[in-house]
Amino acid sequence: MKVQCLKGFRDYLPGEMLQKDRMLQTVQQVFQQHGYPPLMTPALEYSEVLLNKSGEEADLLLYRFRDNGDRDVAMRYDLTVPLARVLAEHGEITMPFRRYQIAPVWRAEKPARGRFREFVQCDVDLVGVDSAAADAEMLVIGCAVMDALGIEQYQMRVNHRGILGALCRLAGLESAGEVAFLRLLDKLDKIGADAFRSEVGEIPGIDSDGVEKVLETVLIERDDSRQMLQFLQEALGHDDEAAAAIARMDRVQDLIEASGVADHCQIDPSIARGLSYYTGLVYETILDSIPEIGSVMSGGRYDGLIGMFAGKELPAIGISLGIDRLFSALKELDLLDACSQPADVMVCQFSPELLAASFEAAATLRAAGIATLLYPTEAKLKKQLQFAQRAGVPFVIVIGVDEHKAGTVQLRSMDEGLQEEISLAEAMKKIEQTCRRDGQ
Amino acid sequence: MKVQCLKGFRDYLPGEMLQKDRMLQTVQQVFQQHGYPPLMTPALEYSEVLLNKSGEEADLLLYRFRDNGDRDVAMRYDLTVPLARVLAEHGEITMPFRRYQIAPVWRAEKPARGRFREFVQCDVDLVGVDSAAADAEMLVIGCAVMDALGIEQYQMRVNHRGILGALCRLAGLESAGEVAFLRLLDKLDKIGADAFRSEVGEIPGIDSDGVEKVLETVLIERDDSRQMLQFLQEALGHDDEAAAAIARMDRVQDLIEASGVADHCQIDPSIARGLSYYTGLVYETILDSIPEIGSVMSGGRYDGLIGMFAGKELPAIGISLGIDRLFSALKELDLLDACSQPADVMVCQFSPELLAASFEAAATLRAAGIATLLYPTEAKLKKQLQFAQRAGVPFVIVIGVDEHKAGTVQLRSMDEGLQEEISLAEAMKKIEQTCRRDGQ
Repeated sequence: MKVQCLKGFRDYLPGEMLQKDRMLQTVQQVFQQHGYPPLMTPALEYSEVLLNKSGEEADLLLYRFRDNGDRDVAMRYDLTVPLARVLAEHGEITMPFRRYQIAPVWRAEKPARGRFREFVQCDVDLVGVDSAAADAEMLVIGCAVMDALGIEQYQMRVNHRGILGALCRLAGLESAGEVAFLRLLDKLDKIGADAFRSEVGEIPGIDSDGVEKVLETVLIERDDSRQMLQFLQEALGHDDEAAAAIARMDRVQDLIEASGVADHCQIDPSIARGLSYYTGLVYETILDSIPEIGSVMSGGRYDGLIGMFAGKELPAIGISLGIDRLFSALKELDLLDACSQPADVMVCQFSPELLAASFEAAATLRAAGIATLLYPTEAKLKKQLQFAQRAGVPFVIVIGVDEHKAGTVQLRSMDEGLQEEISLAEAMKKIEQTCRRDGQ
Repeated sequence: MKVQCLKGFRDYLPGEMLQKDRMLQTVQQVFQQHGYPPLMTPALEYSEVLLNKSGEEADLLLYRFRDNGDRDVAMRYDLTVPLARVLAEHGEITMPFRRYQIAPVWRAEKPARGRFREFVQCDVDLVGVDSAAADAEMLVIGCAVMDALGIEQYQMRVNHRGILGALCRLAGLESAGEVAFLRLLDKLDKIGADAFRSEVGEIPGIDSDGVEKVLETVLIERDDSRQMLQFLQEALGHDDEAAAAIARMDRVQDLIEASGVADHCQIDPSIARGLSYYTGLVYETILDSIPEIGSVMSGGRYDGLIGMFAGKELPAIGISLGIDRLFSALKELDLLDACSQPADVMVCQFSPELLAASFEAAATLRAAGIATLLYPTEAKLKKQLQFAQRAGVPFVIVIGVDEHKAGTVQLRSMDEGLQEEISLAEAMKKIEQTCRRDGQ
């Protein structure tokens, strides 16, 4: 019998999960600080709700089956289609509608290193308005997430579908070749200008002079977003769609400056984002010190998608956080350490007679907000200390016969290996100084 | 085309979900305060892992299908079997092992009012030790959960499998009739002594004189647990299993007294808990003012179950929270109100020219920890205020031309309908006084 985790799936054991959970809690707090409440939708939907929404390939990756009532059902593939379904079904929802959803999705993909068939998506969306305020709010939230996670060195790179449309037209393309062209533009950073030239050359109808103009436009270096907007106005302002996009980005720039996050947002006409459903602003987030992991947080405006079931256009803009990437990044940037321990202190069992004293001390510690583990059975002190060491608990308290008589405890700092006999109140102060868990 | 939620499933819209999420966050904080980290296991398991574990009926209720690789898979039915699988599969896990898991499970049951095919289970377990300390820790955690949720009037009713075994023997039964007898004992509260007498009379081998002795024992009123233990010692102390159970409960009593939670724990020999896998302490939690909703939090020691895949006995004790019941209870007890609003304040848009001022004010408010919604598009002030009212946001800030010049804001209290022109700093103080979100 196979006693193992299903192929392509994985368990998150407590050590890792504790860190991941705290990361997600921080993210949720940011969403809630911006007035976004959570939404929860079922893992299963009628298959027809999910089919034909995310492309043919997506349909093949669905976990689809017949339930006990012979209904054709499937496990959700993303969080966007269920959101669209919710908005069509619940007439009581009023616009503008904000929500976030953090939940697993399932895709029967070929497993690869770091890719699993179940993974957590984390989406925040604002539905019902197409405005510079809504656009700016997403950038403000994105920067607030980075800030709350302790990431200081990052750039949100921002572009607009209108700029991308103008670039396509500059290259001689109408809607036919756009997708292929934008996909290559998205890879320009990686493949370089020469490979880009040769690969776009194969798109039917491409204008090679136009391609050079596109390269001039997207490869320009402008650190200052206002300068970049001015440059884009000069280069693409003749194109109506581009002019409207530039005016919108100019307005967004006002608002992110007022919000104090403009330094982290950089307009970059080379950001294409592969997905064809974007209709306005698009953005991705690159960490300065580890750009190679790619965007940790991206999204854009997609006015055509969310209204698909409601039968009307519902403008929408959102951000999707790459939870696994972000988690790896935090690990690499050493921003997880403070929250990896299962508790701030472990109280040992000295003897059966003194066990109640340990319980009493644990209650006092917890009442003061100190996360406290109690060694749950009789064992030699050495074994108990080893357990604390392995679990990564920074402090251990022992209450022996002498300490119990004197009204003191032995406080041991596991890192330093130092032990001192002090009052419980003093011990609490020392633990709190080291483990300020809430305020960190 | 069916644009609707799957039959037997439901959406949790933001208003309700926000409250539910905050309840679960509170619960998680309690678990973590006691040194319990989270575990996450996949939604899908190999069917053979889940089959034949929870009874024939459970097997029929599995969402079971063949995946794209023709594997026989099923969605998890509970959180206990996956825990057992994890403990067998991950050799690196050391004992004692603590974890909590809060996650949906799926059962293809006949839907009924308040019963859905997807529901969230919330389990906390301590594996690897069979000790009074572990038993007491569970009661301590249970009481800490109630306390953190603001529930003051409740009783954890505690019993022990050894007492129940002795009662069965008193009624003339050996293992054969035990399950039926204990199931009826569990219902004694509801059906009364007469119906109990008549229904147990049908169990083969039952001794009617013994049944009277059982009734005398379980119907006795003893508010004080020590007195109850003494009474049980007199009534059942001749039975070895009962004597051991009484000794264990006596020890647990020491420890919960030391932890300051003994007042909320009441030994009650009539608590049977239906599940046959319990091997030691069992408990359930009744809210004094709404006992009719049943136990909101229950569990016990089940030493035979968790080791099923590991091939060895792994003692374990746990609590399962009835999330939906608990949520209804909090609603009924009026303990949810404080956290139903999506934000503490909404900042309006007065005019396009002053929008940046609104963004700046919102950034200042959020930096101070005030959850702030910004109305995301141009609209008449009246419409914006209506939105805030409907969303349940208690304060609204408007920055008009005069206020912008004077460096002030209009702060409107939606409940009172009062509006005043004050500085942003003063407004923040007023909002904080009303909406102390974190410390509540």
